[in-house]
Amino acid sequence: MKQELIELRKKMQQTGIDVCYIPMDDFHQSEYVGEYFRTVRFISGFTGEGTLVIGLDKAALFTDGRYFIQAAKELNSSGIELMKMGEPGVPFAEDYISELMPEHGVLGFDGRCVDDRKGKRLQTAADKKHGKCLDTDLVGAIWTSRPALASSRVWILEERFSGESAEHKLARIRSRMQEEGAEYHIITSLDDIAWLLNLRGDDIPCNPVFLSYLLLRQKDAYLFANPADFDEETRSYLTGLGVHLEAYSKVYDAAAQLRDGTMLLETGRTNYRLVEALDASMQVIDKPLPTSVLKSVKNETEIANEKKAHIKDGVAVTRYMYFLKHAFGQDGRITEHARKLLGTDRLTEISGAEYLERLRREQDGFLENSFTTISAYGANAALPHYAPSAAQDTELLPEGMYLVDSGGQYFEGTTDITRTIVMGPISEEERRHFTRVCQAMLRLGDARFLKGCIGVSIDYAAREVFWKEGLNFNHGTGHGVGYLLNVHERPNSIRYRVLEDPMQNGVLEPGNIQSDEPGIYIEGKYGIRTENLTLTKEAERNSYGTFLCFEFMTMCPIDLDGIDVSIMEDHDIELLNQYHKTVYEKISPYFAGEELQWLKDATREVCK
Amino acid sequence: MKQELIELRKKMQQTGIDVCYIPMDDFHQSEYVGEYFRTVRFISGFTGEGTLVIGLDKAALFTDGRYFIQAAKELNSSGIELMKMGEPGVPFAEDYISELMPEHGVLGFDGRCVDDRKGKRLQTAADKKHGKCLDTDLVGAIWTSRPALASSRVWILEERFSGESAEHKLARIRSRMQEEGAEYHIITSLDDIAWLLNLRGDDIPCNPVFLSYLLLRQKDAYLFANPADFDEETRSYLTGLGVHLEAYSKVYDAAAQLRDGTMLLETGRTNYRLVEALDASMQVIDKPLPTSVLKSVKNETEIANEKKAHIKDGVAVTRYMYFLKHAFGQDGRITEHARKLLGTDRLTEISGAEYLERLRREQDGFLENSFTTISAYGANAALPHYAPSAAQDTELLPEGMYLVDSGGQYFEGTTDITRTIVMGPISEEERRHFTRVCQAMLRLGDARFLKGCIGVSIDYAAREVFWKEGLNFNHGTGHGVGYLLNVHERPNSIRYRVLEDPMQNGVLEPGNIQSDEPGIYIEGKYGIRTENLTLTKEAERNSYGTFLCFEFMTMCPIDLDGIDVSIMEDHDIELLNQYHKTVYEKISPYFAGEELQWLKDATREVCK
Repeated sequence: MKQELIELRKKMQQTGIDVCYIPMDDFHQSEYVGEYFRTVRFISGFTGEGTLVIGLDKAALFTDGRYFIQAAKELNSSGIELMKMGEPGVPFAEDYISELMPEHGVLGFDGRCVDDRKGKRLQTAADKKHGKCLDTDLVGAIWTSRPALASSRVWILEERFSGESAEHKLARIRSRMQEEGAEYHIITSLDDIAWLLNLRGDDIPCNPVFLSYLLLRQKDAYLFANPADFDEETRSYLTGLGVHLEAYSKVYDAAAQLRDGTMLLETGRTNYRLVEALDASMQVIDKPLPTSVLKSVKNETEIANEKKAHIKDGVAVTRYMYFLKHAFGQDGRITEHARKLLGTDRLTEISGAEYLERLRREQDGFLENSFTTISAYGANAALPHYAPSAAQDTELLPEGMYLVDSGGQYFEGTTDITRTIVMGPISEEERRHFTRVCQAMLRLGDARFLKGCIGVSIDYAAREVFWKEGLNFNHGTGHGVGYLLNVHERPNSIRYRVLEDPMQNGVLEPGNIQSDEPGIYIEGKYGIRTENLTLTKEAERNSYGTFLCFEFMTMCPIDLDGIDVSIMEDHDIELLNQYHKTVYEKISPYFAGEELQWLKDATREVCK
Repeated sequence: MKQELIELRKKMQQTGIDVCYIPMDDFHQSEYVGEYFRTVRFISGFTGEGTLVIGLDKAALFTDGRYFIQAAKELNSSGIELMKMGEPGVPFAEDYISELMPEHGVLGFDGRCVDDRKGKRLQTAADKKHGKCLDTDLVGAIWTSRPALASSRVWILEERFSGESAEHKLARIRSRMQEEGAEYHIITSLDDIAWLLNLRGDDIPCNPVFLSYLLLRQKDAYLFANPADFDEETRSYLTGLGVHLEAYSKVYDAAAQLRDGTMLLETGRTNYRLVEALDASMQVIDKPLPTSVLKSVKNETEIANEKKAHIKDGVAVTRYMYFLKHAFGQDGRITEHARKLLGTDRLTEISGAEYLERLRREQDGFLENSFTTISAYGANAALPHYAPSAAQDTELLPEGMYLVDSGGQYFEGTTDITRTIVMGPISEEERRHFTRVCQAMLRLGDARFLKGCIGVSIDYAAREVFWKEGLNFNHGTGHGVGYLLNVHERPNSIRYRVLEDPMQNGVLEPGNIQSDEPGIYIEGKYGIRTENLTLTKEAERNSYGTFLCFEFMTMCPIDLDGIDVSIMEDHDIELLNQYHKTVYEKISPYFAGEELQWLKDATREVCK
């Protein structure tokens, strides 16, 4: 049994806690978290995404299909059972809590690491056993060598990038507060704060945000963050905005001191402890964060910048495609030139991804990757969220297909692109599936729809080609994308099922940027995905209403070696040729010589 | 000012009521209502669908676009203002109530004529003025010559038609009650009661139901209805089912007597007075009616019967098409033969609809129309819900287009079909639009989708062809249809917007029957709609899940005179030919001679 688990249980007994709930979350409901928050790994040894439920005798880790094999290995002899979520007979974490909780028992969890809605559900689980919840950071109490909270310089995003001053954004949010009758407004979602204040940081890998809470009033605001991360310039910038800088952890006391007011917040995006800290005299107005809706509608400056970012990004990925297409010699072995570019003798999922990152770094204004690159060769690509590791880093060969899903953070915006590259001979079936994925992506990009539609109303444009053949892909077709912020952003999305939270099914608005990424995954064989980002824009206004359409932002060839033109509709072929013509126009100025020749061929017009 | 309005106000003053709310609804939230419930017409003279809000000095009728012209005429000098719902600046009825309500005022309405959710909203409106609601039938108090409540013989639908005994249905509902932990269950929705007990009546035009409430317990049940409508046979049938027959109006007392129990009901489908009558010790479980979900999934007997009903119905409508196509001679005048068939000299919207009804009556097992026939010539068809009246009964000419939307109630099920008939020369635009409507209907009928989808997930299959050209139709694409019950049935529907009530966006289930009825409406010029009913069924099961598809139930040609094959995709043409081939196979046995020759031609294979 792992020593950390033994110590945690000792602590649980000392504190009178019967069951301990440990999610892999930070205090801001962020998708990715910093080292400080890797409590699950500390206790269990498991390095993926999962949630721990620890009782005094039994303990379990809840994780999904992406991590079954890895978790089984990493949990080995840890004393923690693996719960394969979604498999038949596997309980939900909350039901498992009920199983472990004795009558009148105590359920412990760090109330900062669960959102208020989740916290209330844990409360209900405890209530069922006539027990109670204890909001405490039990892991912190035993984790002596815990990494410090992330700290990085906070910097101002200039208006030539943001397109709207923080003053103006604050005024818009304050007018929403007035409409809702709210004197106070708490925002704890990091990308919402970064957007609102036109500030960026580097506290979370791939997300240029900084740990903070924001408490807004009509006349001023309080930013709770690490003061050491703010230099003279950002401090006076904040002062100019009427924003007082306070210590990060002070937010709970500040919230607790408020009386007899109205507070706008989103319970699904604010942590349990913070909401619980509010005095009973405070009236909570639980509404979706106004910043999330406003942020998702990119302004003209952002859109113009994003187009530039996508050309840069397209150039980098296209160079990578060229590299991959020429990495192997006639003898089937990796060329001398390719070795030099890679800086190593082996072309593997990881060395390839690293080379792609270097190509992105050559682009002006590139800051970092926008998420961990999915670099997956052959059967590995059948796992939609696969990421190579030192333990599993497959070598690429001049056969089959290679999938690379990657993106960059640029001053001009955030990118996210997937291309599947044909590395050598592929089967009939592979070519048919590659073509279907391409058709689906192009058809959704060609959709036209009435304003008021949510993504569910148009998802069929992408799915039809799969469903007609009894195929499907088990992930959303599209997600919103931030501007130099999170690569996954609410509320716009494209999927075929309506989700309970309305902020996951936002009405599609002109100025939204989202992905269009159908795929197909054949277990043990291969995976194909083609992803472009699209901009939602107005197409036409007439007596029927306002019609919207998409424009492709991503500028990079789709590998024609995977395409079987004969099974495409005429209109699909038109769309493909049209797209490739635009790609060539936009990125060819950055290519020369053999690369340019190749690009010309890679974007050639095809016909039946 | 109308005398009835004056008397109502006198009564309001006597009773201390400041504002009176009068909807056009019965006690069961039925879509169509009997004569007893035409209180709006009695007070205002308005014969369409609308809601009255009467203050002591001001009064208004709220109605929608279908009735603007008619209402303006009928309200003339009634002292009642016309509120054109949806027009800019026109208030909602509830806001208008707030406008008329004085502080501490009293809002009166018949609590049986509003569902509980609506009643609670009226309560909130009164609360805002620190006033109160008074549940009373004020119109009834002054309507001395009020028609009696509808009364008709209640009869048993044999199991060869229903496919499942009432015993079995009751057992299924009782098991749902147990799952919900409900000791009692109130059903007041008339088609739900008729379905559950395999009983039918004739209390509402076009809907073969009977006025009743049902109170279920595990061991027995109480049916509150007019005992005079039950003969020896139905009484002993009810006794056999453990159902006690009680007087219709007794339900409120019966509900009020319950104590300390759990009651399953759907507040959106149960009237306000009945829910208010429950003692405070009764715990209400507000859930969608289980009967509504079960009823929407047709069993094998019902499906087999429905197929028969649709052949009969298709034969009748096809005969009508043949008649229309041959009603005019070379001279452009109505033929002698057509006059004989019509029984009148003029072919008008009404005489045509009457002839169609006679053709349906010739079919074995036909009971009545399933709704008021929409028989609309030329520009009249641009109003999707147009119904001709004695005052506006347009004559058909051998030019332009004629739209007929009609349906029948048969022992073998309920039908609903729309065909648009080309009566003579039409324009390019008319032909293009006719073709688009046909494409949309066929494509939705050809959809294939994963089980779990709601109609919104596939509506794009129909809308795409319109939206791509900046066109739209402002109504749902499809609604569920009952079995010898209401022509509009929850929860399955096909539309592009998600509605708030989940029972309006039901998951599409195998066994569902629904309409597929895209259209296009050009104001002042013409309207086109083509409507088939479809059966949802399983297409394939594989590792991705269960795929569903539709099968066309409606068997009647689509007028090829309106089709421009050159603007259709190859696949659309295949679908059209396939459908017409099936239509010919199914209904040709019922035709002979010239009619058969014509049918052969009307269902011929077309190509580019």
